Amino acid sequence: MRLEMLVMAGALAGAVGGCKAEGPKARGGASPALEQLMKARNLTEANVKAALATYTPSGRHDEYYLFGSGGQSGQVVVIGLPSMRILKYIAVFTPEPWQGYGYGDTGSKKVLEGGRKRDKDITWADTHHPALSETNGDYDGQYLFINDKANARIAVVDLKDFSTRQIVSSNIIESNHGSTFVTPNTEYVIEGSQYPAPLGGEYADVKQFKEKYRGAVILWKFDRAQGRIDRAKSFAIELPPYMQDLADAGKKVSDGYLFLNSIDTELAYGGDMEGNVPLESGASKNDMDYLHVINWRKAEQVANAGKTRVIAGLRVITLQTAIDEKLLTFIPESKSPHGVDVTPDGTEMVVAGKLDTHATVYSFSKIKALIDAGKYETKDPYGVPVLSFKDSIRGQADLGLGPLHSQFDNKGNVYTSLFLESAIVKWSLKDLKVIEKVPCHYNVGHLAAAEGDTVDPDGKYLVAMNKWALDRFAPVGPLEPQNFQLIDISGDRMQVLYDLPIPLGEPHYAQIVKADKIHPIDIYPPDTDASTGAKSEFPVDDGKERIERKPDGVHIYMSAVRSHFTPDIIRVTEGDHVHLHIRSLEQAQDATHGFALDSYNISLSLEPGEHDDVDFIADRAGVFPMYCTEFCSALHLEMAGYFLVEPKGPKTAER
Amino acid sequence: MRLEMLVMAGALAGAVGGCKAEGPKARGGASPALEQLMKARNLTEANVKAALATYTPSGRHDEYYLFGSGGQSGQVVVIGLPSMRILKYIAVFTPEPWQGYGYGDTGSKKVLEGGRKRDKDITWADTHHPALSETNGDYDGQYLFINDKANARIAVVDLKDFSTRQIVSSNIIESNHGSTFVTPNTEYVIEGSQYPAPLGGEYADVKQFKEKYRGAVILWKFDRAQGRIDRAKSFAIELPPYMQDLADAGKKVSDGYLFLNSIDTELAYGGDMEGNVPLESGASKNDMDYLHVINWRKAEQVANAGKTRVIAGLRVITLQTAIDEKLLTFIPESKSPHGVDVTPDGTEMVVAGKLDTHATVYSFSKIKALIDAGKYETKDPYGVPVLSFKDSIRGQADLGLGPLHSQFDNKGNVYTSLFLESAIVKWSLKDLKVIEKVPCHYNVGHLAAAEGDTVDPDGKYLVAMNKWALDRFAPVGPLEPQNFQLIDISGDRMQVLYDLPIPLGEPHYAQIVKADKIHPIDIYPPDTDASTGAKSEFPVDDGKERIERKPDGVHIYMSAVRSHFTPDIIRVTEGDHVHLHIRSLEQAQDATHGFALDSYNISLSLEPGEHDDVDFIADRAGVFPMYCTEFCSALHLEMAGYFLVEPKGPKTAER
Repeated sequence: MRLEMLVMAGALAGAVGGCKAEGPKARGGASPALEQLMKARNLTEANVKAALATYTPSGRHDEYYLFGSGGQSGQVVVIGLPSMRILKYIAVFTPEPWQGYGYGDTGSKKVLEGGRKRDKDITWADTHHPALSETNGDYDGQYLFINDKANARIAVVDLKDFSTRQIVSSNIIESNHGSTFVTPNTEYVIEGSQYPAPLGGEYADVKQFKEKYRGAVILWKFDRAQGRIDRAKSFAIELPPYMQDLADAGKKVSDGYLFLNSIDTELAYGGDMEGNVPLESGASKNDMDYLHVINWRKAEQVANAGKTRVIAGLRVITLQTAIDEKLLTFIPESKSPHGVDVTPDGTEMVVAGKLDTHATVYSFSKIKALIDAGKYETKDPYGVPVLSFKDSIRGQADLGLGPLHSQFDNKGNVYTSLFLESAIVKWSLKDLKVIEKVPCHYNVGHLAAAEGDTVDPDGKYLVAMNKWALDRFAPVGPLEPQNFQLIDISGDRMQVLYDLPIPLGEPHYAQIVKADKIHPIDIYPPDTDASTGAKSEFPVDDGKERIERKPDGVHIYMSAVRSHFTPDIIRVTEGDHVHLHIRSLEQAQDATHGFALDSYNISLSLEPGEHDDVDFIADRAGVFPMYCTEFCSALHLEMAGYFLVEPKGPKTAER
Repeated sequence: MRLEMLVMAGALAGAVGGCKAEGPKARGGASPALEQLMKARNLTEANVKAALATYTPSGRHDEYYLFGSGGQSGQVVVIGLPSMRILKYIAVFTPEPWQGYGYGDTGSKKVLEGGRKRDKDITWADTHHPALSETNGDYDGQYLFINDKANARIAVVDLKDFSTRQIVSSNIIESNHGSTFVTPNTEYVIEGSQYPAPLGGEYADVKQFKEKYRGAVILWKFDRAQGRIDRAKSFAIELPPYMQDLADAGKKVSDGYLFLNSIDTELAYGGDMEGNVPLESGASKNDMDYLHVINWRKAEQVANAGKTRVIAGLRVITLQTAIDEKLLTFIPESKSPHGVDVTPDGTEMVVAGKLDTHATVYSFSKIKALIDAGKYETKDPYGVPVLSFKDSIRGQADLGLGPLHSQFDNKGNVYTSLFLESAIVKWSLKDLKVIEKVPCHYNVGHLAAAEGDTVDPDGKYLVAMNKWALDRFAPVGPLEPQNFQLIDISGDRMQVLYDLPIPLGEPHYAQIVKADKIHPIDIYPPDTDASTGAKSEFPVDDGKERIERKPDGVHIYMSAVRSHFTPDIIRVTEGDHVHLHIRSLEQAQDATHGFALDSYNISLSLEPGEHDDVDFIADRAGVFPMYCTEFCSALHLEMAGYFLVEPKGPKTAER
C-alpha cells in the first residue's frame, strides 16, 4: 500500500512538472483527507485511474448511451458511458406501471395488443438484440428496434421520447434470434428465426422435422416517416430448419446482402425420451454448419414481383423460389457459430464459432465472384447451392477458447469475446494476429464497442456483457445480477475500468451510440397522446374540463396541473362505461404527474403535455381514491380526489 | 484547472511526506496517463475525492445495502453503498418475467393473488416505505416489508433469497401512506391509511365525509417463525378521516407507542366542480393538524379481549372504543407535516411540517405524564382527547423552507430535508441549533441514513432522494429519472459524493443496513419451491423424469441441468390440462436456468435447486419451442425442446 501511495503521489507530482512548484501551503492542503481516503478504502493506483476515468460529476452528461436488451425482463436498459449509470429501463414488451405502460391507457394497450399471438396477450419477452436505426450505415439516433426471442416478435422504440410505438408479430415463426439487425439505411429490420416449426402456426409432428419444419428470415419494411413497420410491404424468405442464429447486414460494398449463421445443419431436434440423442449433442456432430448469404435487394424485387405465397398475412418467398431466383447461398462455417459481424468497411465478415478456437474472415468480393460465376461446390439436401469454404475466406485467426462475438475499433482491430476463456482478445484484422488478451469476468457473452456496429466505430470504449456475477458484488442471491465490464480500448493496452451489476434481466447484446446523436424532447406539445406522438382524439381544453354522459358511457375531460386534478370528484353508477381523458397542462421540463385509481389497476404517467385516455367499466361499487403518484410539489399529497361508484341496486346497508 | 491540478498534486505529495522521496523514475512513472485523465475529464479536486470515496473495485463488496421503494414500479430497488451500484430490482407487487414472478408458476401466482382487492387482480403498486425487520430496535436483516399506497396493501420480502413471500390486503381501507413501519421487535407491521373512505369498502357519498369516511391504522401481526403476516392475530384501530400521513414506532422508553401524522383536520375533500374549495387549499387552512399518539400495547390487549368489531374479516377497534380505552391521544402539530421520526434513544419525536420552517421536538416523557394524568386541553370533534402543544414539546428548531423528513447519526445530530430550499440541514438535537446546510439537487424528498431508523445509527452515509433530475443526466425525457445523492456525513462537514439516476420508478423512502447483516443463500436446497421456501409438493427425482396422464390432466416431471431439459419433447392434445413440475438439478452458485414457452406467456427463473410448478390449459394447437432463457453454458442455445399440442379436431390441412 505504501508503495502504491508513493507511485501515485509521484505520478501526480510528475504530472504538474515536479515538486519545486509546491509551497508549504499546498503540501499541507487536502492531503490528509486524500491519504485517509486511499488508505481507508484500500485503493491501488489502477483503481484510482479507473475511478477517475469513470467518475462523472454531478450535472455532467455521459459521452455515450448504451442501449442494452433487458433479456427476460422484456424491456430495454439505457446506460450512460463512462459513468456506467443506468439512466432508464424503457418499457417495451412487459407492462410497466411507473411509465404508465399497459396499466389502463388505451394507447399503450393498443401497442401491446400489436404483439398478440394466436389472439392471446403476451405480456413479456426474451429480448436479445437491440438495433439502432442507421443512415448510411451510421447510427442516426432516431429509433431503436428490439426482438422477443421467445415469441418471435419485434418492437419499435422512438428515441424522441424513449417510448415504445409498435410491437409486431409475424405469426409465421415461433421464435427468433437473428434479430433485430437493420440494413444500412434502415430500409428493413431483419428478424431471423431460431427454433424451427411449421410456418404459420400449423401443427406437424416433430418427426416430420425435415419435411415440415422450417426457418425463415423476415424483412420488416420500416417506414421512417411514420416511425412504424409497414406489414404490407414486408416479406419473409423460407429457410431450411437449420436453427438460424445471429445475423448482420452488409454495408458499403456488401450493402444489399445479409448474413445469417446456423447451428443445426444436422437437423437434430432432441427427443431424449423418444430414443433420440439430446439436441446439444445431436446438433454438434457436423464439423461445419452453414453461413447463409442472402441477397435482400434481389429478394425485395422478387417479393414485389408477386413471386410469394401469403402465410398468416405475410408474403413469403418459398425456399424453392429463393433457390430458383438465386437469392440464397450457403458457405460452410465452423460448427456452433454465434456472431457473424461485418467489418466497418463492409468487405469482410467475421464469424466466431464457440466450439472452434478460430475466427474466420470471409471475403465478400470472393463470395460475390463465386456467386456471380455460379461456382458452387455442392448443394445442401434442400437444393441450396453451397460455396467452397476455402475459396470464400481470406483466412482464420487462432484466438482461444470459445470465441463468440466480435466488435471493431477505428484502427483496424477486432475484439472478440472468448466465452470459455473468460477473456477478450484484441487482434489485427489485417494480419489475423492476436495483439493482446485481457481477462474479464466469468462467462462473457456479447461485446459492444462504441459505435461498434457502424461503418465508423469510435474505438474508445468496449463493454463486455458477462453472464454470471457469482460473488463479484454484495450478494442478492440465489438470483444474482449479470455483470457489465467497461473497458477502455483507446490506448495501446485494454484497461478494465468498471464492473456494473445489472439489476433486472440478462442483457444479451447492446449498441453504444454517441450521446450527441440522441435528442429526446423535454416536453410533449400540448395534449399529445404519448403512445402515438400525435394530438389526442379527445382534446381537453384548459377551463373546459367536464363530465359528459353520452350514449357510449360517461366521458370525463380532466386536467392535471400542480397540484390539482379537475374535476376532483367523479360520480358514476356501477356498470357505467367510463372514458377518462386526462391532459397534463404542465409545460415545464420534468413536471410529471401520475394518476392512480384505487382497486381498478390503473396507473398513468402524465408527462408534461401528455394526454392519456382510459376506458373501463366501473364494475365495482364503492369509494375509490385517485391521486397523483409523482411527487410534484409541496402539496403533492393533496393532489387527490374521489371516484365514486354508486351501487346499482339498493344501497348497501349502513353499518 | 491548472490550479486544481497543483492543489491536487500538492495534496498527494504532501500525503506521503513531501517531495524528497521522489526519484526521477517515480516522477516519470504513470504520471502522463493520470494527468491526461484529469485534464481530459476535467475533474476538480473535489471530484477526485468523491471518485475515490465511492469507487469500489471489481470483486469488492459494498459496506451497506440500501433498500428503496420502487415507487410506482411496484418493486423494491436494492443499491450498494458507497458504490451506488443498483444490485437488484426485487419483484414484489408487479409481475416480472426475469425473476419468473407472475409468469406461469403457481407459487408466485398465489403470492400475487393474496393482493387481490374486491376479488380482482391488482398487478401494480405505488410503493412508498420499505421497513426492515428489527430486533431490539435494530435491523436484523431477515425481512423487508413494503406498502402499496394506491391499493392499501403490504408485502413481505424474505431476505434469505430476496423473494416476495406474501401480499396482504386488509379490504378495510382504500389507500395507505403511514406504512410500512415496524415495532422494535417486529411484533407488528404498521399500516396507516391516507385518503379516507368508508371502512370495509361500502359506498357512501363524499358529502358524508365527516360522518361516514374514516381513517384507520392496521397492526399486522408478524409471525417471524413462519415469515408471514398472521391475519387472524392482526387488528385495526378506526380513526377520524384526517388523512393520516407518515408514522413511526416508539423505541426503548417509548416502545409500545406509535406516532402518526395527519394533514387534513379541516375535513376537506375537494369537489371543485361541486362548489367546494380544492383539497390543497381546503386542507391547508388550519395552523395545526394532529399528531396521533397510539398506545399499541394497550390496543393489543383491547383487541385480544374481544372489544372489536369485525369488518371485512379484520378485527377493528372502533374510534369510540379507542377513546373509551384511552388508546388514542392527539397533539397539535404544525400544518401539513410529513415525517414523524422517533430519536434513536426513543425519548423524543421530531416532526417536520412542509409549510412551517420549524421542526418540532416532542418529549415522550412529557406526553406520557400528561396522558397518565389525564391532563387534556380539549377534545376533537370526534371526542378524541387533545394534549397541549406547548406542554408536549421540548422546543422547535428553525431550519428553513419546507422541512420534510429527518434522520439521525451517532453523534446527536439530526439531518432534515428542506424540500423548498433543495438543501439538507444538519442540526443539533441537544440545543436545536443549525450546524450546517448542504445544497442538494432539486426537490429533495425523504432522506435515508445508514442504520438511520434504528436505536443505533451509524453516522456514515446519508442518501437524499431527490424527485426531479431535470438536466442532471444525459436526457431520456420527457420522463426523467429521479436522483439519489450520496452524502458523506462522517466528517465535520457534509460532502456530496455521488448522483445516481434511478432508472425505474420513483423511490420515496429507503432504509440503509450494514451489509454484514444480510446473508442471502447462494442456492436452494434441492427441489425447493422458491415461492414458499419449502420442498415442493410435486418432487422431481433425477433420473425419474416422466410424463404421466392422470385424471386431472397431464403431469410432466421435468429436470433442468446444463444443458438439457428432460423430457425435451412434450406431447399433449389441444384442451389438455397441463401440469409442469420443473426442478433445476444445479447446485452451483449462479447456475440459473430459465424456462420459456412460446405463445403461452410462460417465463420461469430456475435458480440452483429451485422447483417451479406451472398449471395451464393447452388451448392453442401447434408447435411451441421451449428453451432456457439464462445463458448457462456453451451449449445454452441447444437447451431447448418442443411442446407439441396436437389439434383436437381433424388435423389442419397440409400446405
